Amino acid sequence: MHKFVAAFSLAAAALAAAPAHAQFAKGEDAIRYRQSVFVIMGAQMGRINAQLKADKPNVASIQSAAAVLASVAPLAGEGFVPGSETGGVPPTKAKPELFLDGPKVAALSKKMNEEVAKLNAAAKGGDVKAIQAAFGSVGQSCKACHDDYRAK
Amino acid sequence: MHKFVAAFSLAAAALAAAPAHAQFAKGEDAIRYRQSVFVIMGAQMGRINAQLKADKPNVASIQSAAAVLASVAPLAGEGFVPGSETGGVPPTKAKPELFLDGPKVAALSKKMNEEVAKLNAAAKGGDVKAIQAAFGSVGQSCKACHDDYRAK
Repeated sequence: MHKFVAAFSLAAAALAAAPAHAQFAKGEDAIRYRQSVFVIMGAQMGRINAQLKADKPNVASIQSAAAVLASVAPLAGEGFVPGSETGGVPPTKAKPELFLDGPKVAALSKKMNEEVAKLNAAAKGGDVKAIQAAFGSVGQSCKACHDDYRAK
Repeated sequence: MHKFVAAFSLAAAALAAAPAHAQFAKGEDAIRYRQSVFVIMGAQMGRINAQLKADKPNVASIQSAAAVLASVAPLAGEGFVPGSETGGVPPTKAKPELFLDGPKVAALSKKMNEEVAKLNAAAKGGDVKAIQAAFGSVGQSCKACHDDYRAK
């Protein structure tokens, strides 16, 4: 248990933008919170992807979605608090390992937030090729964590 | 049905920041999306409230929460699309009237977004009394819609 708490505390401290005010009354509230962040992130990624596949991408739509993405991505880590390892409606897909691999999870989270920030910057710049490249990097940073820590 | 569609289309067109790219494969996806927005909004409101009740409010925390609130609040309306009147996990609490009262719902949504923008501006200003007042107005704008359109 000590090992678990130590590993988690490290992760909690290192996870990008997990502020001290992130508190939840119940574990399921934390699960609901992080799931909500991922739902919104996924929707924005879907919108950007749809534009990038269009003949004439709507850059304003991409910019809007990228700004939302950059705003909420830093919140994702807040929800992975002790007591939220299982449960939720719908049930959490987080694997138990996520709560044990503090430094690795923190590094993945940091990477994801960096790539999202780059995508937001690229979107503001308006160059579709640059947006496309940054979008791919964000997708890879999402997948890296999903591969190891999200159940099928 | 025509009346319903007409009322809803009016609401959809008028709801603040409901862009044309807001599309969902299934009604339950739209429900999940709007619920996610409300979960994140509620959490930020809770954080701001906690700071405002503290002896020495952490203005930086309030600013961070208000910025997230301002980023996601405009998304709430996107999820109220035809086909999302019932269902969801957990089930939607939206009353059927929400999908029929187009102009009234649009006005409530517009008001909420205006108050959230004012709160974000007040937070940036850093004056706690001004933040407190703006926070109260946001709360009232949330409650106005909940009172009429959210089931207990």
